[in-house]
Amino acid sequence: MKIAKLFDNAFKDTGPNITLVHESEFAKVLSFTFKAGQGLPLHAHDIEGELVLTVLSGQGEFLSETGKVPGRSRRHVGVAPSPRATASAR
Amino acid sequence: MKIAKLFDNAFKDTGPNITLVHESEFAKVLSFTFKAGQGLPLHAHDIEGELVLTVLSGQGEFLSETGKVPGRSRRHVGVAPSPRATASAR
Repeated sequence: MKIAKLFDNAFKDTGPNITLVHESEFAKVLSFTFKAGQGLPLHAHDIEGELVLTVLSGQGEFLSETGKVPGRSRRHVGVAPSPRATASAR
Repeated sequence: MKIAKLFDNAFKDTGPNITLVHESEFAKVLSFTFKAGQGLPLHAHDIEGELVLTVLSGQGEFLSETGKVPGRSRRHVGVAPSPRATASAR
């Protein structure tokens, strides 16, 4: 089993930090770290599949075409019907 | 975006609790909750893909055919090359 370590020196004053955790023909796993107030604007990727968002720490908002919803660590998983959704931190 | 809430009344004295968070042609998302000492034995599912394990809270071990490795919340993501891996809580 491949084990990836998260969060080491991940938070940046200059903006969100995005780390590629894993990529294969089956899944792409990304780690996003946001300082309070940081986030990514709504955008889309031209790939087939779904986006599954899990909040590992802190709280913020999930953002999709249907609006913003709050997300808390250990409380919420967001699933978008197409790869078009994002998040921000509070 | 579909939002799933986790952990409500999830921990059971009688054993691990498994909740289906999401299932589609692209992904199956399960929430496993283990009290200390609980876990699942190594097993396999006859499906194509990969297993991505994220620890949302607490600490325990990832278990695969290559052995046991520790996993901590917010620190580790485990990816198994086939859907044959599991976890337990300490």
